This record gives sequence, C-alpha cells and structure tokens, in this order.
Amino acid sequence: MIRISIDAMGGDAGPSVVIPGAAKALERHPDATFLIFGQKDVCEPLLAQHPKLREKSVFHHCDVAVGMDEKPSAALRRGRNVSSMWRAIDAVKQGEADVAVSAGNTGALMAMAKLCLRMLEGVDRPAIAGIWPTLRGESIVLDIGATIGADAQQLLDFSVMGGAMARALFEIERPTVGLLNVGVEEVKGQEEVKEAGRLIREANFSTIDYRGFVEGNDIGKGTVDVVVTEGFTGNIALKTAEGTARQIAELLRAAMSRTLLAKIGYLFAKGAFDALREKMDPRKVNGGVFLGLNGIVIKSHGGTDAVGYAAAIDVGYDMVRNALNEKIAHDLKTYHANHQPNQGPEEAA
Amino acid sequence: MIRISIDAMGGDAGPSVVIPGAAKALERHPDATFLIFGQKDVCEPLLAQHPKLREKSVFHHCDVAVGMDEKPSAALRRGRNVSSMWRAIDAVKQGEADVAVSAGNTGALMAMAKLCLRMLEGVDRPAIAGIWPTLRGESIVLDIGATIGADAQQLLDFSVMGGAMARALFEIERPTVGLLNVGVEEVKGQEEVKEAGRLIREANFSTIDYRGFVEGNDIGKGTVDVVVTEGFTGNIALKTAEGTARQIAELLRAAMSRTLLAKIGYLFAKGAFDALREKMDPRKVNGGVFLGLNGIVIKSHGGTDAVGYAAAIDVGYDMVRNALNEKIAHDLKTYHANHQPNQGPEEAA
Repeated sequence: MIRISIDAMGGDAGPSVVIPGAAKALERHPDATFLIFGQKDVCEPLLAQHPKLREKSVFHHCDVAVGMDEKPSAALRRGRNVSSMWRAIDAVKQGEADVAVSAGNTGALMAMAKLCLRMLEGVDRPAIAGIWPTLRGESIVLDIGATIGADAQQLLDFSVMGGAMARALFEIERPTVGLLNVGVEEVKGQEEVKEAGRLIREANFSTIDYRGFVEGNDIGKGTVDVVVTEGFTGNIALKTAEGTARQIAELLRAAMSRTLLAKIGYLFAKGAFDALREKMDPRKVNGGVFLGLNGIVIKSHGGTDAVGYAAAIDVGYDMVRNALNEKIAHDLKTYHANHQPNQGPEEAA
Repeated sequence: MIRISIDAMGGDAGPSVVIPGAAKALERHPDATFLIFGQKDVCEPLLAQHPKLREKSVFHHCDVAVGMDEKPSAALRRGRNVSSMWRAIDAVKQGEADVAVSAGNTGALMAMAKLCLRMLEGVDRPAIAGIWPTLRGESIVLDIGATIGADAQQLLDFSVMGGAMARALFEIERPTVGLLNVGVEEVKGQEEVKEAGRLIREANFSTIDYRGFVEGNDIGKGTVDVVVTEGFTGNIALKTAEGTARQIAELLRAAMSRTLLAKIGYLFAKGAFDALREKMDPRKVNGGVFLGLNGIVIKSHGGTDAVGYAAAIDVGYDMVRNALNEKIAHDLKTYHANHQPNQGPEEAA
C-alpha cells in the first residue's frame, strides 16, 4: 500500500483537475490510498463523481489555499499549518503519507517543504529533478529551478541524488551521470562545474557512473541518464527545450494544412503523427521531484490536465515503491563516511 | 563594394567547404570582393574550380592553420601574425577588409580577434550573438559563448550591442529586448540579471525597447527581438534547442517510415515536409557575430557545408552594409555620455 497526500487546491484549475487526476492514478495503482486536502465545497462534489477514489481516500477540509502567484514568504505567513499545501506536506512528516503531490506554485511548495520536512542529513540544499524525454528514452535533469547557483559540493550532492532517483525510476544499477557544461574538454566552463567534476571523479562512486561533461545537445540525445546543473541554467534549458518543441509542433501543424496534398498526406500518416504526439506528450513526463528533503514531494505542472496530474502521481508512486529517499540517504552516508569536506583532510575518517 | 576576408583553413572540412561557400555567397552579392588566407596547395586547385570567385579575390598563402581543438593560448603562440585565422582578422584591422569570416575554433578565433582588433571603446567584454529562428521570424540571442558569466553592466552592454545588431540585421528601428531569467517577476532570478534589469530600465534607451525578463520558452516564441544572457547559459540554451530540434526531426523521420500508410502520407506531404525542413534548416541561420570589437568577425559553425558557410558570409555582408559597428559605437557613446558608472554620479557629465 502506498499512501499519497494531495494538495487539491494547487494548479491553475485546482480540484477540477486534481481530483479526476487522482482518480486516474488510482485506476493504475489500485493499492494506493489518498489523503486529500482542500476546500470542502469544491472538492466534495468532485469526489462524489469519483466514488472509487472517495472510497480509497480521506478528505480534510482546509480553509486556506496558496495562490499560484503568491510569494513564498507570503504563502508561509498565510498558509503555514493551515493551507492545503502545507497539510499535504505535513502528512508526509507525520508519517501519515508516503509522498505529497501538488500542482501549486513552485516557490511556495519548496519553501513549505523545506520548512516542514527539513533537509536530509548531509544535504546542503534541495534540488528539483525533472524527467526529460530523449532519443534513448528518458533522462533525469536537475536542478531545474529549486535554487539559483550551486557550488561544487552541491553539484556533487545533486549527482548522488539524481543517481539515486535514476536507480529508483529506471531501475538500472549504476546510472550514467554528466555535468552540464559549455564544452566537453576538462579545461572549459564554470569554475564550480570544473571543481565538481574533479570531486565526483575522485569520489569514485559505486552507485553512479560519472561520464564527465555533457553539452546542451546531449540532453535530448540521452547521452547520460542524469544531467546535473544548477537551477538557473537547468530551468532555462528545460523551458528552452519546451519552447523549441512547441515551435516545431506549430510549424509542422501549419505545414500540414497549407496545401491539399499535405492535408491528404496528413490523413494517411495520421496514425504516425498521433504516435509521435503521444511520444512527445509533455503530460507524460509531468512531475518534478524535490530531492534532498526528509520526505518525497512531487511538483506537478500548474497548467496540466487530469492526465498530466495522474502522471505526476505515478512518479511519486514509483519513487516510494523504489525507496528513493532510502537510496539517497544511503548513498550520501557512504560518501560522507569517506569524505568529510568541512573538516579538512586530516580529520577525515 | 564590401570586402570580406576569409580564413580558408577554418572548419572541420577547411577549404573544401569554405571556398565553394564563398563562391555561393559571391553569386548572391556580386559587389563583394574577397581576401582569402590559406595553404596554397589545398586552396589553389579549389579556386581554379571557381573562376568567378578567383577573379574577385586575392589569395594569400599562410603556412600555419589553427587546429580545431587547439587551445586558444597555443593557437596564439603558434598562429599569431602567421596563421590564416590571424591574417584574416588582421586584414580588418589594416582596413583591407570590412569583415572577417572563419569556421575555425571559437576560442582561438575570439582570443585572436580580441588581441588583434581590441575592444570597442566603452565595452568591457565581447559577446557572440547568434541568430535564432522563431515562430515570429528570427531573434538575436547573446552571449552564446564568448565568456562565462557577466555582471549587470556587461549585460547592459550586451543589450545595447544586440539592439544595434537587430537594427542592422532586421532593419527595424527600435528592437525589443529581454533579459533571460527563470521567471518574469521582478523579484526572481540571478542578482546580476535583476540589477541589469534596473540599469537598462533607468537608462531609458531610445534605440531599444526593453521588455523586462523573458524565460527559456520565450526564445522560440520570438517574444522579443533580442534575448540577452551571459555566455554559459546562452550556450547551453542554444545547444539544448539544437538538440531538441534534432530529436524531434529524428522521431518524425522514424514515425514517417514505420507503417505503409505513414510512408504514403509522407509522399503526399513531401512538399510540406521539405518546406518545413527548409524553414528549420540550421545552415540558414549559421553565423555567430562577435560584438564589441573594433571590427566585425563572423564565426561560422565548424561542421557546416558550403550552403551554411555562405550563410555566415551573408550575415557578415549584412552587418557591414548596415553599419553594425557604427551603430554600436554610437549607442554606447550616447549611453556613456549620460552615465559614467565607474566615476560615481557626482562626476557624471
């Protein structure tokens, strides 16, 4: 049994997407149970439309819903202890749920998750990991926007956490990891990235297969299972790729409706186009995973629909089933037992 | 007449791409003349195959060719004054050419261009500007990899230089400019970017229309004419977009050959596919422009073919014809006459 807590008020559409999304996820994972936090008057009629979900869930009314554009500080002031977002996270802390899912505003969700769950021992700062469709399948990219900037040690932590997530999600033993940089030569790039490369190489992890630097075009190729970068660059890379995909889709659509021949061709090839669209469907890879906290929190895209929201729940479900946080904690513990960077080498165990 | 100096030895394929590329560019610009620098034994037979180009060009033999993987410091040591790359740039300095074009290694080309041409007065560091195909047409993105990191003042300089380039290239009067960031709210993002936003807003330029922050997905949309960022992020955004475009093209190709119906559809829609391919052809937007130097240098992609190389020459031709550097110098002079950031406000004119 996997217990999922849901912030029903998060997302552009709120409960009208979240509750049908949870119902869809339940169809795929009949062993899941739900704790749903939200405003009674909106949620209850929707739950009534999904009797199977209602049967497998406990609903908790919350007066406060965090706004999609609310500043994290304001959200904390107004929503701590009482908002649906906070309470969904807190259920994980209290051991009542295994994972929390929210489509609410990222900044507020991260602020609340940090305050409520606290950092995993040995982790300096959290990261948001995204799942990126590639030519080889899927890769993990982190940090896609938890914080701006990261030093070498933090990039090393991201490698360990991303590696653990790849093992949990793709069920591979020793995922390949690359550091995002502007060139593959060891001499190029940001100082932090070069230093992180040295640290990761020296650490000689048994759990990840470090492959050195990768460039922006390697992400889509699927050159490595895990691409590590700091949150500013990661966020811009992600949104640039989304923008490019949308741009090409739009050009393709326009091209296929411009001439009669193209329209006929489109009809013949419709099955192929549909398969391609399905493959590139951004809803299928919805779900950013907050890594580095004492508990798993999944951020769904705020503008997704029920299909996308269900995919975010799927990600959370997989992370719990494959013991993501135990893997991260274990890997970090092993690393820190051998390296004590803050104490100087003479005191290392 | 526009005089173009060519580093024939630059690029993965060297003269066998560069010389046919220059010949193609000459067809489009019959008023162009060329100074071609390269190794005699390779270049002369190729020039013999392009009699029109040979007629409009002067060839100079150079013993040294800079290697594509040579470190900038090594390239300078070995190639200063004597390599085809250096001499192509130096021709601009000597007033013998209006623009230099090279497909050689970016680091070496930038190092030589800086040393030979020096920075424009009032410019702190150069930038490489790329032309990005968008849904609205084309935008300029800079810096795509001249240097890593930029402070607020440098980002402001990039805005001015990118704006001047947009006026030269797109022939619009007051191009729109955005700063690449992780969110459009004024409170988010890197400190340097936020500070740059304040500086640009305060400067109240008559030559650019500053639109605030833009995100990664705005680049492909064409939200602004000029997207400004520092070189690390710009390079990764560019390569991520290239990777995504290649990924989708590959998936589309696979989808269109998977079933008989798809193959038939492809035949009908072939014209539309060809038009789309032409629209997204990366060769058409080849040519990074080095901004901020006393002279115009164009970097062609090292792996391009003659069509792509000709496009890089086209960019150089347009930059000269539309007086890019005069525009940049004028805009910077106007700005610095009103703002003297290094001297404190009390001494400002």
